[in-house]
Amino acid sequence: MDTRLEHDLLGDMALPADCWWGIQTQRAVENFPLTGVPIGHHPALVRGLALVKAAAARANLELGVLPAHKAEAIVAACLEVAGGRLHEAFVVDLIQGGAGTSTNMNANEVLANLALEKLGWPKGAYAHLHPNDDVNQSQSTNDAYPTAARVALQFATEPLIEAVAGLRQALADKGREFAGVIKMGRTQLQDAVPMTLGQEFEAFGVTLGEDIDRLREVCALLCEVNLGGTAIGTGLNAPAGYGPRAVAHLAELTGLPMVPAAHLVEATSDMGAFVLFSGVLKRLAVKLSKVANDLRLLSSGPRTGFGEIHLPPMQPGSSIMPGKVNPVIPEAVNQVAFQVIANDLAVTLAAEAGQLQLNAMEPLIVANLLQSLQMLAAACQMFETRCIRGIRADTERCRELLERSIGMVTALVPHLGYATATRLAAAALQTGQTVRALVLAEGLMDAERLDEVLSPAAMLGPGADPKAIA
Amino acid sequence: MDTRLEHDLLGDMALPADCWWGIQTQRAVENFPLTGVPIGHHPALVRGLALVKAAAARANLELGVLPAHKAEAIVAACLEVAGGRLHEAFVVDLIQGGAGTSTNMNANEVLANLALEKLGWPKGAYAHLHPNDDVNQSQSTNDAYPTAARVALQFATEPLIEAVAGLRQALADKGREFAGVIKMGRTQLQDAVPMTLGQEFEAFGVTLGEDIDRLREVCALLCEVNLGGTAIGTGLNAPAGYGPRAVAHLAELTGLPMVPAAHLVEATSDMGAFVLFSGVLKRLAVKLSKVANDLRLLSSGPRTGFGEIHLPPMQPGSSIMPGKVNPVIPEAVNQVAFQVIANDLAVTLAAEAGQLQLNAMEPLIVANLLQSLQMLAAACQMFETRCIRGIRADTERCRELLERSIGMVTALVPHLGYATATRLAAAALQTGQTVRALVLAEGLMDAERLDEVLSPAAMLGPGADPKAIA
Amino acid sequence: MDTRLEHDLLGDMALPADCWWGIQTQRAVENFPLTGVPIGHHPALVRGLALVKAAAARANLELGVLPAHKAEAIVAACLEVAGGRLHEAFVVDLIQGGAGTSTNMNANEVLANLALEKLGWPKGAYAHLHPNDDVNQSQSTNDAYPTAARVALQFATEPLIEAVAGLRQALADKGREFAGVIKMGRTQLQDAVPMTLGQEFEAFGVTLGEDIDRLREVCALLCEVNLGGTAIGTGLNAPAGYGPRAVAHLAELTGLPMVPAAHLVEATSDMGAFVLFSGVLKRLAVKLSKVANDLRLLSSGPRTGFGEIHLPPMQPGSSIMPGKVNPVIPEAVNQVAFQVIANDLAVTLAAEAGQLQLNAMEPLIVANLLQSLQMLAAACQMFETRCIRGIRADTERCRELLERSIGMVTALVPHLGYATATRLAAAALQTGQTVRALVLAEGLMDAERLDEVLSPAAMLGPGADPKAIA
Amino acid sequence: MDTRLEHDLLGDMALPADCWWGIQTQRAVENFPLTGVPIGHHPALVRGLALVKAAAARANLELGVLPAHKAEAIVAACLEVAGGRLHEAFVVDLIQGGAGTSTNMNANEVLANLALEKLGWPKGAYAHLHPNDDVNQSQSTNDAYPTAARVALQFATEPLIEAVAGLRQALADKGREFAGVIKMGRTQLQDAVPMTLGQEFEAFGVTLGEDIDRLREVCALLCEVNLGGTAIGTGLNAPAGYGPRAVAHLAELTGLPMVPAAHLVEATSDMGAFVLFSGVLKRLAVKLSKVANDLRLLSSGPRTGFGEIHLPPMQPGSSIMPGKVNPVIPEAVNQVAFQVIANDLAVTLAAEAGQLQLNAMEPLIVANLLQSLQMLAAACQMFETRCIRGIRADTERCRELLERSIGMVTALVPHLGYATATRLAAAALQTGQTVRALVLAEGLMDAERLDEVLSPAAMLGPGADPKAIA
Repeated sequence: MDTRLEHDLLGDMALPADCWWGIQTQRAVENFPLTGVPIGHHPALVRGLALVKAAAARANLELGVLPAHKAEAIVAACLEVAGGRLHEAFVVDLIQGGAGTSTNMNANEVLANLALEKLGWPKGAYAHLHPNDDVNQSQSTNDAYPTAARVALQFATEPLIEAVAGLRQALADKGREFAGVIKMGRTQLQDAVPMTLGQEFEAFGVTLGEDIDRLREVCALLCEVNLGGTAIGTGLNAPAGYGPRAVAHLAELTGLPMVPAAHLVEATSDMGAFVLFSGVLKRLAVKLSKVANDLRLLSSGPRTGFGEIHLPPMQPGSSIMPGKVNPVIPEAVNQVAFQVIANDLAVTLAAEAGQLQLNAMEPLIVANLLQSLQMLAAACQMFETRCIRGIRADTERCRELLERSIGMVTALVPHLGYATATRLAAAALQTGQTVRALVLAEGLMDAERLDEVLSPAAMLGPGADPKAIA
Repeated sequence: MDTRLEHDLLGDMALPADCWWGIQTQRAVENFPLTGVPIGHHPALVRGLALVKAAAARANLELGVLPAHKAEAIVAACLEVAGGRLHEAFVVDLIQGGAGTSTNMNANEVLANLALEKLGWPKGAYAHLHPNDDVNQSQSTNDAYPTAARVALQFATEPLIEAVAGLRQALADKGREFAGVIKMGRTQLQDAVPMTLGQEFEAFGVTLGEDIDRLREVCALLCEVNLGGTAIGTGLNAPAGYGPRAVAHLAELTGLPMVPAAHLVEATSDMGAFVLFSGVLKRLAVKLSKVANDLRLLSSGPRTGFGEIHLPPMQPGSSIMPGKVNPVIPEAVNQVAFQVIANDLAVTLAAEAGQLQLNAMEPLIVANLLQSLQMLAAACQMFETRCIRGIRADTERCRELLERSIGMVTALVPHLGYATATRLAAAALQTGQTVRALVLAEGLMDAERLDEVLSPAAMLGPGADPKAIA
Repeated sequence: MDTRLEHDLLGDMALPADCWWGIQTQRAVENFPLTGVPIGHHPALVRGLALVKAAAARANLELGVLPAHKAEAIVAACLEVAGGRLHEAFVVDLIQGGAGTSTNMNANEVLANLALEKLGWPKGAYAHLHPNDDVNQSQSTNDAYPTAARVALQFATEPLIEAVAGLRQALADKGREFAGVIKMGRTQLQDAVPMTLGQEFEAFGVTLGEDIDRLREVCALLCEVNLGGTAIGTGLNAPAGYGPRAVAHLAELTGLPMVPAAHLVEATSDMGAFVLFSGVLKRLAVKLSKVANDLRLLSSGPRTGFGEIHLPPMQPGSSIMPGKVNPVIPEAVNQVAFQVIANDLAVTLAAEAGQLQLNAMEPLIVANLLQSLQMLAAACQMFETRCIRGIRADTERCRELLERSIGMVTALVPHLGYATATRLAAAALQTGQTVRALVLAEGLMDAERLDEVLSPAAMLGPGADPKAIA
Repeated sequence: MDTRLEHDLLGDMALPADCWWGIQTQRAVENFPLTGVPIGHHPALVRGLALVKAAAARANLELGVLPAHKAEAIVAACLEVAGGRLHEAFVVDLIQGGAGTSTNMNANEVLANLALEKLGWPKGAYAHLHPNDDVNQSQSTNDAYPTAARVALQFATEPLIEAVAGLRQALADKGREFAGVIKMGRTQLQDAVPMTLGQEFEAFGVTLGEDIDRLREVCALLCEVNLGGTAIGTGLNAPAGYGPRAVAHLAELTGLPMVPAAHLVEATSDMGAFVLFSGVLKRLAVKLSKVANDLRLLSSGPRTGFGEIHLPPMQPGSSIMPGKVNPVIPEAVNQVAFQVIANDLAVTLAAEAGQLQLNAMEPLIVANLLQSLQMLAAACQMFETRCIRGIRADTERCRELLERSIGMVTALVPHLGYATATRLAAAALQTGQTVRALVLAEGLMDAERLDEVLSPAAMLGPGADPKAIA
């Protein structure tokens, strides 16, 4: 095999001559055989790294510290990688020691070799363009890596927002479809008061839709970056004016409203935006899990459960019980939600473990957030297309359950008082008679007034459309 | 107000003359106004502290480093406090900095003053018997406090074990009571195959009962203590032979099989036993929550849910819906379980934060474990007496649901094959016919054979008693 | 003892004649002996409940469903309770089943009896003013309780914001005080590049200060309430127009910008605002813990640690090691932070457990959030007054450590390149020579240029004030 | 492309003719595109599944419900897969709805097709040997899958135990190597009392070694399986005597002491063993993190930290700071530990979400436990070989720090009392004089006695070997 020799602080190492990465990447690959998931698994992260390097090169060029031919080659290499090239050369394990240095050096080395190719030099000819001196110029891992991560998270949030929007729409559509299905509402799993199935699905859509706003709000926090702060936020080795220029280029290259953080020393060790971002993902996970739980309850049966809705069958449910169809899609949503909640803990633990001028555990934070984003987006899309869109209401069952229940006694409280209504409810439960019959038998109201009080219009409140029902 | 003056490293302080605690306790009270819950809130902890001090005094006496009159006074004071006296003088907040030093000094000071009283001296006359030199002799907070905590946790485990045993018994009793109630089993909230309600309650009892064994096993880990290791496990300032003697006295005083840890340096910073103890509490919490969830499901209704059982009504369920009765006891059990799971995280975080020769966060560990033990014991007792004992089965409802279901098709698989049974199930669901009718109509089995295959004896397995049902 | 008889769905109960609460409260007290911490422990919650009841009464009066004399009596009672009266009558355990019904009924009953007193009736004379029919009129626990909780959390956030602001100020003051103390920055616990101690403290202040904004933002989410939705959000039993009126009165009574939620069915079961609120508290906890960790590191020693700062001694540190002073205040801060992180998990678990039209676990959410708020506020105030304000810098030690380090080699990279600088660093470490001496010996730069490159002005970046140092 | 047609409850599907898996696997692949990690990623799980199927086939053969030619073909197929063949055909995502049905069917289908090949039939010729009727005979996912998981976890525990043992040995070796290095012990990051570096490393080894015992203990819980319980533990469709026979075969095939669970209904829904297993992994993670933290502290520097030890440099530490070497291996260990702690939460959430006769979230439990086992094993091996084995002590630095400290004042307490020793410590700190000098100057002890009291033998306790030091 044809090899080339590279050198670093610890000595020499032979690499395959055509290897896109260099010695520091290779050391990291050997040091961290932990999960088998490489950086390149998350295209958003590779894009983020490449665009940070491009922004830095442009700023360095403008400030006269990087010659034009190098800058051009670097920027060209960055844009190609951002466009999807060579992601397979981002090989370091996502979980790694060193606060992201290995990820940063993986980027520096691959981009240097790609830029060298553009300049007509072979891989490893770093005398002509150097991973540290040129690609990493005016940067440290400690500003380049978290900046790239903040960009990457925003990139990876877009598909999630789209998936949530799709899910919200599907739920809203079902809300309209089921506007005329009147049913019993339940609190604490006990019969409460009437509502429509449409209101129930509408509510699912509204609650998930709100989190699109929350995601956008928390992304704003990720726009503040410490690029220009270099090692600890003091900006050592970055030329005057570099930081704001580099960030401005980054904003342009990414299309995101990136801005320099107000206090670079603070920004270099602060993980607060990641913690809150993770908190928003957790909130979404909690809501998804609740909706999945509700759908599993409402579709429980087919004969011994609630049975108000039917989920679309996606696969046979059992290896032993013929004909069984299980709510496999909501169950998968629950599990994704649990993993996201767990990942939030990993983020929290890593954030808390920062020390002094840096948080060495950032790779774990980034890995967990990217995984959560990816899983949530996949789960939302799966939920929409393989479950929600195919749900059917069992209108008859809904109405039958409502009629058997005694929850409508609540509607009599303003007319008969809480104490009398309580007595009627107890009597209905004990005797099996309907509330209506008892009221009439006792002469507490006349039939006409009773019809009015117990009509859908009266019982469903302003949120429902009685016409749809009647 | 009559005062006395005490002195420490930081200077002088006036205390009320009749105050049982001293200057170091008072400083801690002022330093840590965090939760309002004092050490004395947990009698088990005060008992643990007092018995450790008594054991130390006895060992010191035997080794000739503590004069008999002091040792006797100290031991007498300790036994009184262990018996319940002066718990109100253990005033430092449970959550405190200093790795438990303030708790230890609170014990040293109160016990010194009580011992002084026995010797005929006023409070604060430490020249005659000193909190540090005498009560704390041969000890450090770093061995005395964790040893006391390990004793305390075992004391506090006893009421929990009793409560779990009571709960297990109540569930087993219900298992017997419901042995003849045949019903549909459910997996993934979908109708599965038949079982008895008795089996279901039996299983609840078995699963919770197992945790009594787990609790006893993990208590064994708490019996290994670092008493004698003093500050960091090297035993500095403890006379030769002190550790094993003190531990032997502690075993005798507590009635627990306490033994010296094998490696005192390790034992001084190791929180492993607490982490695993908390893990067992969490396991119990998870199981309790699952049982509570199941009871809420099974009792859902009264008219629009599963309705297979009735929980005893404990209070009106709603301020607006008359006659509503909610499963308030299981709901409270769930919440206790959630708190215990959360407390386990606090324990984990604190354990991970240990540094070098000590874990400064032990007070948080101890506070959370004691709270979890207390809440779990209360919840189990509440669950038994205010819920399980009063549960009634709705035998009719159980049978009716079973008969409507198509889950019995599974029993035909060994006779007709999975594929045919699947077809029958689908047909039954679609046409509303029973599986039995379809089999006969298609001539797949004769009526007699079918009766046999679908009999309770055949369907319920060896765990159930078909006689109870037939 | 003089008693009175009360009645509810489950039967009769005798209560002491002068008891402020009624039968439903008493049942709950007996049902939930779980933590010993009653509702009244959190004045903010009692205030929230009382003001919701006052707002409801005013709206009911305006809509003609509550007579003026009752409304006036109820409002007067509410304002007295909001002002601090009778908090000791809010006796139900904070952790309770029933989704807050017992808390709501505790408020209804106490307020009814206080209003009855104003009308000249004895306690329990509910025929004249009824806890359910009048105090709870147009409400359900399911809208009144979460609305009160949202008000309460905002009340309880104010002292926290004040405490964080005080802490931020103290840190900023120290930042100014230490602006001239030059020291070595550290990343990954390894010597990095120079900075000032002032920058370090400034950063602490900035990072904590940011969370004041986050707290205010998330409080905005708590302003959306479902008051008027009654049992499940359909508004059953509330007169037309009641909801917006009641919320407007609540805004006026609380001084908070409360608004009706857009979708009342959604709002009734949605716990999203609580989850995110908890996430913000967790974020603050993570930051506090990080600052506490840093201060413990920087003050480690006195002789075998970093020793760059001295924390004010607050209490003797050890029962065995004389003269030892420990960082007890930061340690307590860490523990509070861990508890808050754990409480966030309790909130998450409870939020996920909501089912269908309600979340029955709200009491656990409210209990944990109120405890976290209270502990964080206490911890921040303790941190400021008992630690930060008294910190002293060891300027000599800082400078001495800096001079011994080789981190300044980084400043040479733009001039000598990364590879040469690496070689110099290795040589300095191996030989013990200073970087400066090696550069001059090798003739790589002249002395004047070297002085310039290694001057504070050059090394500290724009964030520091070199004049303060020189 | 050549295809074959398969059929299930939901209809027909064309599959590539040479596809090892069948229609149900393919549906699951399409339904759950969630993580991209397939079952086959964990060989231990595939082995577990295959051996369960082999055990079942043998029991079915003995009981006469499976013809010999089929049984032989199935067993042969199972043994090949257990030996490593066709793992790439286990393609369903690890995270899936359906309680593991898709995993079970993936195994059934692949094994059926492999067995068909042995019998000379093409893939898909299920009339001759059927995935459900034959491979899955007498089983349900609900007993086969958790049984396979329990086997798999034990398989995957072995490499972890080996890795922990290697780590323990390396630490013990270092303990011996450093037995003569005397240093200052630290509690709460403050100078405490003397110890040896050997004791410190010994303690690391002891604490991690203990968890080997804990892992073995908790594996015992995993040996109890519900095989034979079929769908819900009642054993429906399994011939009499099948369960114990199948488990006995499983024990023989796996070499593990597998036994039937005492109560099959309980065992089918009980996740307690998984929760506790996860708790033991978390405990190990907490300990690893603590050791990693300590090594990072002890190696902090090189010039401005503790500097008592040197970690072997594994890679350049910084893209900007030349010569910087960071503790990248311990940092990676910390991150793995955090992920394991987070995974424990996922396991907890999933376990709590079980309902009635089954826990549908088992796939998440299994996925997280297998990932934790794999990461922990990799991290321990990395820790041993890339860090611990190469650690060097800085004996000079250790001694120098010790001599500068005043912690030895503690050794004087038994001779001079706590109060006098406190005064001496304060004076030493203030004046910079040594404790020894102050004692002599005040004539509190004579020099000879002082030498004895402050000798290593006296100060280090029985755990250390003074000869090694002197």
